[in-house]
Amino acid sequence: MKKNQPDGCRLLTLRQTARFLKKHDCYVILTHASPDGDTLGAAYALYYGLKEIGKIASVICPDVIPKKYDYFVRETDHVLREDATVIAVDVAAPSLLGSLQEEFAGAVKLNIDHHVSNTHYAENLYLDASASATCEVIFELLTQMRVNINDITAKALYTGIATDTGCFKYTNVTAKTHLIAAQLYDYAIDAPEINRLMFDTKSRKLLDLERMVLDTAEYHFAGKCMLLCVTAEMQEKTGCGGSELEGIAVISRSVEGIEVGITIKQTGEREFKVSLRTFPPLNASEIAKKVGGGGHAGAAGATLTGTLEEVKDQILVAVKQTMEETYAGIVTA
Amino acid sequence: MKKNQPDGCRLLTLRQTARFLKKHDCYVILTHASPDGDTLGAAYALYYGLKEIGKIASVICPDVIPKKYDYFVRETDHVLREDATVIAVDVAAPSLLGSLQEEFAGAVKLNIDHHVSNTHYAENLYLDASASATCEVIFELLTQMRVNINDITAKALYTGIATDTGCFKYTNVTAKTHLIAAQLYDYAIDAPEINRLMFDTKSRKLLDLERMVLDTAEYHFAGKCMLLCVTAEMQEKTGCGGSELEGIAVISRSVEGIEVGITIKQTGEREFKVSLRTFPPLNASEIAKKVGGGGHAGAAGATLTGTLEEVKDQILVAVKQTMEETYAGIVTA
Repeated sequence: MKKNQPDGCRLLTLRQTARFLKKHDCYVILTHASPDGDTLGAAYALYYGLKEIGKIASVICPDVIPKKYDYFVRETDHVLREDATVIAVDVAAPSLLGSLQEEFAGAVKLNIDHHVSNTHYAENLYLDASASATCEVIFELLTQMRVNINDITAKALYTGIATDTGCFKYTNVTAKTHLIAAQLYDYAIDAPEINRLMFDTKSRKLLDLERMVLDTAEYHFAGKCMLLCVTAEMQEKTGCGGSELEGIAVISRSVEGIEVGITIKQTGEREFKVSLRTFPPLNASEIAKKVGGGGHAGAAGATLTGTLEEVKDQILVAVKQTMEETYAGIVTA
Repeated sequence: MKKNQPDGCRLLTLRQTARFLKKHDCYVILTHASPDGDTLGAAYALYYGLKEIGKIASVICPDVIPKKYDYFVRETDHVLREDATVIAVDVAAPSLLGSLQEEFAGAVKLNIDHHVSNTHYAENLYLDASASATCEVIFELLTQMRVNINDITAKALYTGIATDTGCFKYTNVTAKTHLIAAQLYDYAIDAPEINRLMFDTKSRKLLDLERMVLDTAEYHFAGKCMLLCVTAEMQEKTGCGGSELEGIAVISRSVEGIEVGITIKQTGEREFKVSLRTFPPLNASEIAKKVGGGGHAGAAGATLTGTLEEVKDQILVAVKQTMEETYAGIVTA
């Protein structure tokens, strides 16, 4: 059931994907940049699976792999790139290949993914957008191929599923996700230790930053709105930045009674990235639109310029207006 | 396969427990004091199950049920206590009945539990110590009884399993836990919303307290030890106390590179409760023993007297000694 797409990308079935993998002998497996548990788990699980059926393969990650994944990351084969069939896992768009984009973006023969936003850049694509994680897809693929799953393969797969679902917390979890987790428990995966490393371990500098950020907490509109700031000074002082700051926006909506969480992160001398998190009926994208940003109903953002106080005022006015529209009444600070 | 225990408690099988529930018509279902998601989930799931087969039942909780459980808590039947057969769920010992102990401790006809520490106080006991939660046991019981499971029953059961396992994070999770979760996903349980309420929502006062506690963070022994303090003043200022403080000790061992986490909580003018969390090879109970306390390898505690500074010194000396014994070398502050 091959489907030739107008964009030239061929959509494969699970069985066709399995056949593809059996057909070739030598692979390069690419992960996305700023690697997370799912792209790494998928790449290494696929690597271990391919080794079980006598293939040669190399995992290539555009960035340094964080040490916390050491329990399933191993040295892979040395592969001559001109001999290898290139696979990308959990890479929804060529730009996500980061430093590998130039070399590999046009050369991906097989893309295995679960992102509905996949841009169909590869020659062949196996996409299961109902899967919580690419590791869910790889599990089904290895099962389809009747490949032996080792403990380390199971650890890699569990890691991807756990990290992409917030340990089975998020909306992407389905009955199938739990059924696969149940099967992975048949191996010596030590899931509690994986979960401790993935969810209950943070760097000292991030804890320091969180402490500073909590000190900036302001409550507005009768406690319905919480505002947090991450200044450039805090980022410099602690050495925390980039993806390490992702968890901060979550804090702003984790407090009882909060309907809007605002996180203002300084990105330049007079430039700030504002993240909005809301609960229904409040719509974060409605607020963001008022200040030139955009996003989804529950999470949206905008980039604003001015001093921190000016940016605070701008976003609070937009929040007040949206609350008044939503509740059809006047909201007081 | 009835087993008459020397203590007079009869151990039932799952099938015998099902038969017991079908035999009587009117029940009182007791939860433990300071109710959590598992005791409440188990009580209400059992209540809804009994209603499905035409029984009359009342859930009685020794304490006020927190509002966050409103999505599965309903008013139950009014039952004359002298007509009712008393069941306790997730109550491992009579003292855990709290304010209900005097009235009910000697009257429990059936106890359904998963705690290996169960004291066998009831006339009949169905105990499955391999279950992650009493809700896991209740799910199997309702399945055994072929009772219809409604959405609200499934919500109650999912809540108990999720809360007792830290959302599938802890060592008590088994393949069966995930298999049951998969089956509960067949109902309209809105698991992400349950998980948000249970895990990602904290009171403003607790966030305030956490901020104050993080400000006390001290690092010792080349960053291998973190020390946090919860003073009486902080508890008064924020109005946080008791079980609300349970999560604080977890912070002390959540930082990368930390081998010993110490949390000192003031419990009197010159009295402090010290909680210790360690990673192997360090043994928390070895440290606790040195200052007159005790516990397990990974978590232990002691009560110490003196000023806060004196208590800090006492426990740090004990940590230093234990580290030197464990690593067979001198440890510097």
